[in-house]
Amino acid sequence: MPQPNAKRQKTNPTYTLLYHGGIPGRGEHIRLAFEAAGVPYSDAGNTSSASDEVYAACASDCTGQDGNPPCFSPPMLKVTGGGGVRGTRPLLLSQTSNILLYLGPVLGLCGADEAERFYVNGLALTALDLNNETHDTHHPVATGQYYEDQKEEALRKTIDFRENRIPKFFGYFERVLTGNKAGAGKYLVGEKLTYADTTLWQVVDG
Amino acid sequence: MPQPNAKRQKTNPTYTLLYHGGIPGRGEHIRLAFEAAGVPYSDAGNTSSASDEVYAACASDCTGQDGNPPCFSPPMLKVTGGGGVRGTRPLLLSQTSNILLYLGPVLGLCGADEAERFYVNGLALTALDLNNETHDTHHPVATGQYYEDQKEEALRKTIDFRENRIPKFFGYFERVLTGNKAGAGKYLVGEKLTYADTTLWQVVDG
Repeated sequence: MPQPNAKRQKTNPTYTLLYHGGIPGRGEHIRLAFEAAGVPYSDAGNTSSASDEVYAACASDCTGQDGNPPCFSPPMLKVTGGGGVRGTRPLLLSQTSNILLYLGPVLGLCGADEAERFYVNGLALTALDLNNETHDTHHPVATGQYYEDQKEEALRKTIDFRENRIPKFFGYFERVLTGNKAGAGKYLVGEKLTYADTTLWQVVDG
Repeated sequence: MPQPNAKRQKTNPTYTLLYHGGIPGRGEHIRLAFEAAGVPYSDAGNTSSASDEVYAACASDCTGQDGNPPCFSPPMLKVTGGGGVRGTRPLLLSQTSNILLYLGPVLGLCGADEAERFYVNGLALTALDLNNETHDTHHPVATGQYYEDQKEEALRKTIDFRENRIPKFFGYFERVLTGNKAGAGKYLVGEKLTYADTTLWQVVDG
């Protein structure tokens, strides 16, 4: 068995996704970006100590960890090692689009230049808005209450969502694809895959 | 009267906010960042041709302008001149947090280093989530329908929002302030004002 390379371990960052185990949810957008790029990461949702670490970072008495601000809710990304502005202290980020923004250059999924990086971020945010609206159709009155207790409202909201919101979002992304000649109908920005594509794919097909 | 300096006009970018006139809405987050930094910008909402330009960028047949992707909805920011990756072509960005992300370094409102830039973006996103949830209390069933047609559901949602969501968000931002010793209870990230502060202020007090 080869010995671990101590130097490499010190300089290469390791990535840990902190998210609930057993459900795709918003964590899936992060997983998909890693998988598309073929970059290794740890998924705390697959380990037994997962929930402890996930909940600790969002606990109602947490004022931050290792000099990072506390997190509002999962998913979170922990980046350990690799130097950078935080030296040896881990970087802990939350908010799905913020994590994708950080990972974009690391994974080569953020377009070819600065303008494309902002287009990709804007389109990923719009795909995540669609994701939110989809989720809300089942919880129109209260996120913390069961679907069974708001079924009638959910039906009304779902009709509006299907008749007005889905066509608006789908029409928009169709126009983005049409306008991006370089993508030949396959990519939202530029001529190769970005996390705007993976995020939209997960929302629509996932 | 001094003659305009042609060279300066060519190399200094100009910023135009494209948003509906007459209402604060999400455009206000952008206005507030400009005002806090004392950087001049044009507000299309204040001109008579405003709505034309705002609606053109989001029109249901628009596939993009000047090589930028189409926009889903206002606010939008148009950056003209100043060179950069787009040369003389204007950059057109949408999504509130994406516009603030772009303006952060321009306005000196994004913290002191790379880590803080991501903290600021994450906190602004969380403040905008609170903004969305506040808006949704009045339109729980359908965003496009009147409050009067969903009054009963709005009441139920507002109770949940007041009892569960507001304490969760406020408790969170309190913990961020407490954990950021450098900010002395005044700033969310680091030791000076960022657009996380201006955005949260607008959501809570605006």
